[in-house]
This record gives sequence, structure tokens and C-alpha cells, in this order.
Amino acid sequence: FILDEDVGEDTVPSFSSNSENSIYMVSDGTGWTVDHSVQAALSQFEYCLADRGCSVNTHLFSEVNDVERLMEIIRDAGKEHAILVYTLADPAMAEAAKKACQLHGVSHLDMLGPITELLGSHMRVTPMGLPRGASGRKVVLSKEYFKRIEAVDFTIKQDDGAFPKNLHKADVVLVGVSRTSKTPLSTYMAQKGYKVANVPLVLGVDPPKELFAIDQNRIYALTINPNFLQAIRFARYKTLGVSKPSAYSDLDHIRRELDYASKLFVQNPKWPVIEVTGKAIEETAAVILRIYHDRKKKHVMPRISRRY
Amino acid sequence: FILDEDVGEDTVPSFSSNSENSIYMVSDGTGWTVDHSVQAALSQFEYCLADRGCSVNTHLFSEVNDVERLMEIIRDAGKEHAILVYTLADPAMAEAAKKACQLHGVSHLDMLGPITELLGSHMRVTPMGLPRGASGRKVVLSKEYFKRIEAVDFTIKQDDGAFPKNLHKADVVLVGVSRTSKTPLSTYMAQKGYKVANVPLVLGVDPPKELFAIDQNRIYALTINPNFLQAIRFARYKTLGVSKPSAYSDLDHIRRELDYASKLFVQNPKWPVIEVTGKAIEETAAVILRIYHDRKKKHVMPRISRRY
Ligand SMILES: Nc1ncnc2c1ncn2[C@@H]1O[C@H](COP(=O)(O)O)[C@@H](O)[C@H]1O
Ligand SMILES: Nc1ncnc2c1ncn2[C@@H]1O[C@H](COP(=O)(O)O)[C@@H](O)[C@H]1O
Ligand SMILES: [Mg+2]
Ligand SMILES: [Mg+2]
Repeated sequence: FILDEDVGEDTVPSFSSNSENSIYMVSDGTGWTVDHSVQAALSQFEYCLADRGCSVNTHLFSEVNDVERLMEIIRDAGKEHAILVYTLADPAMAEAAKKACQLHGVSHLDMLGPITELLGSHMRVTPMGLPRGASGRKVVLSKEYFKRIEAVDFTIKQDDGAFPKNLHKADVVLVGVSRTSKTPLSTYMAQKGYKVANVPLVLGVDPPKELFAIDQNRIYALTINPNFLQAIRFARYKTLGVSKPSAYSDLDHIRRELDYASKLFVQNPKWPVIEVTGKAIEETAAVILRIYHDRKKKHVMPRISRRY
Repeated sequence: FILDEDVGEDTVPSFSSNSENSIYMVSDGTGWTVDHSVQAALSQFEYCLADRGCSVNTHLFSEVNDVERLMEIIRDAGKEHAILVYTLADPAMAEAAKKACQLHGVSHLDMLGPITELLGSHMRVTPMGLPRGASGRKVVLSKEYFKRIEAVDFTIKQDDGAFPKNLHKADVVLVGVSRTSKTPLSTYMAQKGYKVANVPLVLGVDPPKELFAIDQNRIYALTINPNFLQAIRFARYKTLGVSKPSAYSDLDHIRRELDYASKLFVQNPKWPVIEVTGKAIEETAAVILRIYHDRKKKHVMPRISRRY
């Protein structure tokens, strides 16, 4: 694996140069949807982005709700030879974007129109054409909303083995040695509405007895390659400003700790053992949630189903 | 506003009925990208989804990496009269999906191909055609990765006014009375790599002196409609299993508390005051982050820029 030195947002250069590839992203909402799609597509160019063989600047414009601002952005995009990717719920705005892009020679893509049309014709209903936050939209305090907020509150309280007496209230309990990404995984899943608790495994310290008393189907074991873990623990050192390495990042110690964890996992065969080496947080979360939903409702093809 | 009784995942019926609208979502990765896009599009039908005038079931299939599984899913989609929305990085898989959908009469949409092609021709480079997690992909422990994990660790530690001495290390500090969504906002932004601290404002308790000593440009004030806040606090009561309402959800008390908060905000004019009433977490986060980036780098059009 590679410790990559990437550039990040603070070093964005001034954007006058035309030699850089620019992507303008416009939404009448938050812009997170178009941002997510562009990031997925960009990952298809990782091979050249990582070594700077190619590079790209993205510019996210959110809450673009009037034609004037839209036109100004598209004019800028034209000057910068940028492309434009947009989600605009109002068909008139989407049409205006398209026309202006054609006028200014800006390559463009509508990321909301096609999927909305497809859903509309499938459901045989007409889309509202109203952006989120449009006046006239009713504000809904849904169960879903409360569920998420509760999940986040719960998950934060239960971080790092706190309050074992609450473990039975968790939808998902993660166990693993230090730096197997238990905490970021927990908050990521909490955002999606799952109550997550995590319990650290430490060599020489018994896990809380409550862990073995709760529904064992809710427990997920995390495992990781020792060298990879060492690199992560070293990085943590640097962050904490500790200079002298201790047992925590010593490879022998790491091996013994992972060994202890594996033995515990073997003794608890109901816990799925999930490899986190080289996986992004959202990838591990996807694996866990697929098993979680599969255990609740068996399908031939594991899936995450929801009803709206 | 409305307290909505929605149905949620636990009550998903068995999926044999053809009268329900089904959306199959397929990804060779996690599926979160296609899920995000479908959710954005579905929100255009909120008007009928909320009152059950229309309804839809979504089924997310992740890590679909072989043609056999893909074909099986599409056959099922055909039987269920579902539509299929997919992100498949391998062009051969995407093509196979398209062909099979045509064969089985399944309406379909490729959510990755068009955006990837557009980026490729803009950057004049060829996409890899490899799904995330494909063997042969190098595993990168990027600065970005560590930055996110650190941000989450920091943010969790700083929740609810803890460790005021660390406030100066935060990128963003949120202040507001109880239940103005400080905690879920903090973890949402942490996920995106920002270190967030939050400080509760409580009537009769002075905020920590450190709040006034740090860079005031990093502080964001949250405000909310009193009736809305009361509804949220009542809901919290139910969750906590407390039956008798106290000052916490008393409207007069809430008004006094919000009044105290507004006065503090007036005294600290550098803090942008952000209205959270009726906003989803990601909407408030978008507003805050737009200001955050704008303060770091002034543009005529506020934007969030990144370099890849
Ligand atoms: N709750 C919602 N109601 C209406 N439109 C929404 C909603 N959420 C997202 N959208 C629309 O979906 C697109 C993507 O949203 P966003 O991710 O906020 O940029 C935008 O055009 C939004 O207007
Ligand atoms: N880091 C990555 N490398 C390669 N492809 C990716 C990456 N992240 C996402 N993708 C692709 O983008 C699409 C959406 O990803 P996901 O959100 O995980 O379903 C899938 O086709 C993935 O294969
Ligand atoms: Mg942790
Ligand atoms: Mg809180």
C-alpha cells in the first residue's frame, strides 16, 4: 500500500489558468448529490490523479435558485473552459442551464432530470419541479428525521466501549482492536439511522460481559492486516505529537493483539469477521449493512430494501 | 410543520406484489452513489409519497461484480416490473446490464457511464473501467483518509461542550441551545473532513471563556423557531421515556432561552446566525461550509473548491 501525499483544498491555486481541468457543479439544493456522483466518476481516473498525470479542480455552487446566478456561473464556466454538471429540480432552470451551456460552448450533464423522469414514468406521477427549500414546501419532522438524530446521539455516547449496559440497545455492535476504524464506521452508519456501539479489544483486558449477553447477531468483528495497522498507528502518533514509538505501534505487539482478537472471533462464530484493510469507511459500512439487512430478511440476493 | 408517520424499513412487505413500484439499484461498489441520486429524485415525489398517494420500494444490490449475479438481478427486476438504475465501472458490465434490461423489458438508467465519459473527454484521459475494490487496484492510505478519521475522532471528543481548551483546534465551532441539531451537524461535517466542536448554550450558564478567545470567524450560531424546537424537545422526551414535561420543553422557557441566545449572537456579530428550522442536517451543513470556504477564499460566487 501507499502513503499518498495528496494536495487537498487548502492549496487550491487561483483559477485563472486554463491548463487545469475545471468541473463546475451546480445545485439548487446542497450540491451533495452532484458532488457524490462526480467523486465516483473521478475515481475512475485515480491512476492519473494520484501521480498528477492529470488533475482537476471542482467548484461546487449550491442553492442556485435564480436564473441570473445560474447564467453568471455558466458564463464563468465558459471563460474557464470548464464543464458543468448540475441538479436543478425546476425544469425551466434545467432547460435554461442547457441552453446557456450550448450558447457558451460548455459541455454539460444533467444529473437529476433523467432519473427523475424515469421514476415519474414508472410511478405514473408528475415530479414537483420544486427544489428542496423552495417556499411552499411543507416542512416535515418525520420519524426518519428523529431516528437519525437519535442514532447519532446514541452512537456518540457509546463510542469506545462506553456504557456497556446500553449495548443491547444498539442495532450494530463493532468489535476490533484500536484503529480498525470503529469510530468513523460507527458515525457513518449512525448518519444512515443505525444505532451503533463499538467495543475496543485490548490485549490483556477482557471485553465487558454485556457483549456476550446481548443478541450475538448484532455483533460484527473487524480485522486488519498487521503492517497496514502499524502504518495507521504510526500516523496516529504523528497526529498526537508523540515522537517515541511504544508497544502500540510495535509490530510484534500488533501481531499478538490481532492474534488475541482472532481467537476471540473463532470462539464467537456468530460474529461475521470483516476485513477492513484498504477499504474506505463507506465500503466496510456497505458490507456490514448488507449482512445486517440480510439477517433481518433473507433473500436469495442480499439487498438493502426500503419503502418510501 | 407536520409530524409525519412514515413507514420505514422494518415494515417492508414481502415483494411478491406487482402493484408496488420497485426500483432496483445495482452497483459494483457500495451503492451509496446510486442510492443518493435515487433519493434526490424521489424527493421530487414527496407530495404523493408522504400521503401514500404513491409509494415505492427500493432494493440496493452492492458489490455486483460478476455477470451471473447481474443477470439474475435483472431477471428478478423483470418479473417484478421494476426499473433498474446502476453504476458499473466496467464498460462490459454496463453494456451487459443494458442489453439484459432490453431483453427483459426493464426500464433502466446508467448513472455512472455518462458522467465518466464527460470527465474523460474533458481531461483527455481514459477511465480505468475498474470498480472500487477490484483486485489490482492499489490501496491508498491518503492524507485525505487520515484527515477524515482525525476529524471524526476530534469531533466526537468535542461534542456537547467537552474540553473547551481544544476549541482553538476546531475548523468549525457550532453554538446553539439544546436540540438545534449541533451533534448530528458536527458528525456530518466531520465525515467530510472538518474538525467540528459544538458548545451548548444554556440559560443561566455562561459559555466557556475559550469561546471568546479563539478565532471568531470559525464560530457559527444556530437558531430555530420556538414552536419547532418545542416539538423536537417533546419528541426527545418520548425517546428518553420521560413522561412529565419540564422546563426543557416549556414554551416560555424555550422563548427565554432563545432570547438569551439571540442577545449573545447580537453581541458577537462575527458569528453567522443560521436558521435550522425545517432544514435537513445536510442543508444546514451546506450553508455553513459555503460560508467557511468563502471566508478562506473570497469569490464573487461563493463556492466550495477542491483540487484532485
Ligand atoms: N427533500 C427534497 N425535496 C425536494 N427536492 C430535493 C430534496 N432533496 C433533494 N432535492 C433535489 O435533488 C437535487 C439534489 O439535491 P442536493 O443533494 O441537495 O443538491 C436538487 O435539485 C434538489 O433540489
Ligand atoms: N475509489 C474508487 N475507485 C474506483 N471506482 C470507484 C471508487 N469509488 C467509487 N467507484 C465507482 O463508482 C461507482 C459508485 O460507487 P459506489 O458509491 O461505491 O457504489 C461504482 O461503479 C464504483 O465502482
Ligand atoms: Mg475509536
Ligand atoms: Mg448534542
